[in-house]
Amino acid sequence: MTGERLGSFGPGATAVTGIAELVTNDPAAGEGPLGLVRDAALVVDGGQVVWVGPTARCPAADTAIAVDGAAVLPGFVDSHAHLAFAGDRAAEFAARMAGEPYAAGGIQDTVARTRAADDDVLRANLGRLAAELRRSGTTTFEVKSGYGLTVADEERSLRLAREATPETTFLGAHVVAPEYADDPAGYVDLVTGPMLAACAPHARWVDVFCDRGAFDADQARAVLAAGAARGLMPRVHANQLQHGDGIRVAVEAGAASADHCTFTTEADLELLSGSRTVATLLPGAEFSTRAPYPDGRRMLDAGVTVALATDCNPGSSYTTSMPFCIAVAVREMGLTPAEAVWAATAGGAAALRRDDVGRLAVGARADVVVLDAPSHVHLSYRPGVDLVARVLEAG
Amino acid sequence: MTGERLGSFGPGATAVTGIAELVTNDPAAGEGPLGLVRDAALVVDGGQVVWVGPTARCPAADTAIAVDGAAVLPGFVDSHAHLAFAGDRAAEFAARMAGEPYAAGGIQDTVARTRAADDDVLRANLGRLAAELRRSGTTTFEVKSGYGLTVADEERSLRLAREATPETTFLGAHVVAPEYADDPAGYVDLVTGPMLAACAPHARWVDVFCDRGAFDADQARAVLAAGAARGLMPRVHANQLQHGDGIRVAVEAGAASADHCTFTTEADLELLSGSRTVATLLPGAEFSTRAPYPDGRRMLDAGVTVALATDCNPGSSYTTSMPFCIAVAVREMGLTPAEAVWAATAGGAAALRRDDVGRLAVGARADVVVLDAPSHVHLSYRPGVDLVARVLEAG
Repeated sequence: MTGERLGSFGPGATAVTGIAELVTNDPAAGEGPLGLVRDAALVVDGGQVVWVGPTARCPAADTAIAVDGAAVLPGFVDSHAHLAFAGDRAAEFAARMAGEPYAAGGIQDTVARTRAADDDVLRANLGRLAAELRRSGTTTFEVKSGYGLTVADEERSLRLAREATPETTFLGAHVVAPEYADDPAGYVDLVTGPMLAACAPHARWVDVFCDRGAFDADQARAVLAAGAARGLMPRVHANQLQHGDGIRVAVEAGAASADHCTFTTEADLELLSGSRTVATLLPGAEFSTRAPYPDGRRMLDAGVTVALATDCNPGSSYTTSMPFCIAVAVREMGLTPAEAVWAATAGGAAALRRDDVGRLAVGARADVVVLDAPSHVHLSYRPGVDLVARVLEAG
Repeated sequence: MTGERLGSFGPGATAVTGIAELVTNDPAAGEGPLGLVRDAALVVDGGQVVWVGPTARCPAADTAIAVDGAAVLPGFVDSHAHLAFAGDRAAEFAARMAGEPYAAGGIQDTVARTRAADDDVLRANLGRLAAELRRSGTTTFEVKSGYGLTVADEERSLRLAREATPETTFLGAHVVAPEYADDPAGYVDLVTGPMLAACAPHARWVDVFCDRGAFDADQARAVLAAGAARGLMPRVHANQLQHGDGIRVAVEAGAASADHCTFTTEADLELLSGSRTVATLLPGAEFSTRAPYPDGRRMLDAGVTVALATDCNPGSSYTTSMPFCIAVAVREMGLTPAEAVWAATAGGAAALRRDDVGRLAVGARADVVVLDAPSHVHLSYRPGVDLVARVLEAG
């Protein structure tokens, strides 16, 4: 943090100077939980942050970027996205918004289209959505399988997802595959057996949708245990559609995150606050399905660690915009603007058990977002406005 | 609509071809109220649309833009924006979202900063926001005064606004100026007298905030009548904060639009549906103040013409994004995706009594938005995502 480092940077070092408000997410470095530093600068070198401090004391670097008057924050960490699919469901969305009963296939429609698509189609769709994520300031994102639901299609989804991100999640247990509609136990055997074996080499995480119409607590435990035996760390789709066992299953399994958490009891919040399991809230899902929003305020007040993610998928939340999720979380979930920014950066990192992203301190990855605005507050104060002026990514 | 026009275009004509879905807002030209045409093309020449029809029959033009697979729609018409101001109120927003009582000056804070700013500051802010509007697909926008509240400052706001748009609105009757806090009648005399005289040459419209804490029905009538005597057409801020007389005043004055309409009775809707007065809904305002949303569905079902606008202002709705307003109107006001797109284009045009914008038919202005999406539905189906790939503006 001092001039001692001056002259020690490599020839590729870049200084970002004149930052009106730097969000470090390092409470030791600055003001409040966001660790805000005013009139700040940072230096990046070799893909890492190597210096943070006041602009007036910024050491010289090979390249200097003056962002006078701008807020700078860590790249967003989107810990929940379903990007391996083909087709869209715009007609289903329009019918739902018109209040019409909709008889089409829902998720099975996306499964059919995903299976029918060739690799190039899936890869192009993944690439398009990943580009959208980056343009809106997301520098780390997770991708789940779950629209293949056969051994070959799940393996393929994860193999292609791995080309886009290291944060890949095996979600064979998204819903029961149509071929197993009358034999859900048989499908769980498939998921925990040959499908997992084919998928594990391409995945870091295992996930299960533990809710009404998907998998019950015992099935979910079986999926997570089988994944753990193959070295995959657990995360859970929990309590989206109704009260249930999802959060308990997640906490007992030591999951990094319980996602959705729309319907929670005091007991659920006690389980979460007494654990390392993050509650990942997905405002796009409630927005796009006219569902009630989870009470994020109550979770924070109970000591739960909260993350925000997009849940990007073609059925219930077809957004890639973390700024949009921040704005809705403030409007509808009771988060303050600062809490929402923390949840979309450091919170997402916690939900992926990463300590190299979601913060801007010496040693962290140099994933840096420059806003066309003087404060992080503008991300919720100016909803719908593209405020991401520039994104620097490590490597 | 046929090949007859082939060869008759000027050397500057441009053909846009391969349009997957063209929103014409001309029910005679295509399907439904949006007049959707599939596999469409259009030709623009001299700033106007000169041909609309199937791509297969598109006449040759000097320049061709292939937008294969894209939806194309008229540029958005934002009929309600307060862009002539200085400073922001991010701290007030953050405090409100944190549930804290906020003792700062609110609108009077913006008045003080606007008066203190020099012309270049106001012009730069207007230009920045106008650029945001254009980037997000808005090609026609209105700008109100109302943060000057002296003769000189209101005149200046409108003179600068006129540099950015022909749709300028004199809103001296936004709130009572601080100097007249004890003499509101004196302020109305100022507004209807010397302030109006100075402002009328730079304005097309006169507006008044007829609501709790602003101006009552008689004061509003006096303002609108004085404006009309100077050739300014009326529009009204009505029924935002509570039930009241705003809509009645608007309809009786023949206003082009009653804006906000958050609190309405059946009688209000009957007045609107029996008139040419448009109900302009401003989703950003309810979003950013956690206020209840107006029931747009009920208005449409009652036969009211509905427009959507941003209400862009630094206090209660600091968005410039019509796509964001469309998405929120669908989620919260009961509009279908198609109704929301109509309201943001043809509805806005009706609220400005314009028939040259808000539609893409022969003779209309060539204000054309190309989406990075195959359907207008995506504007609400993909909330927060920047889908505006290209904007063509007449002239």
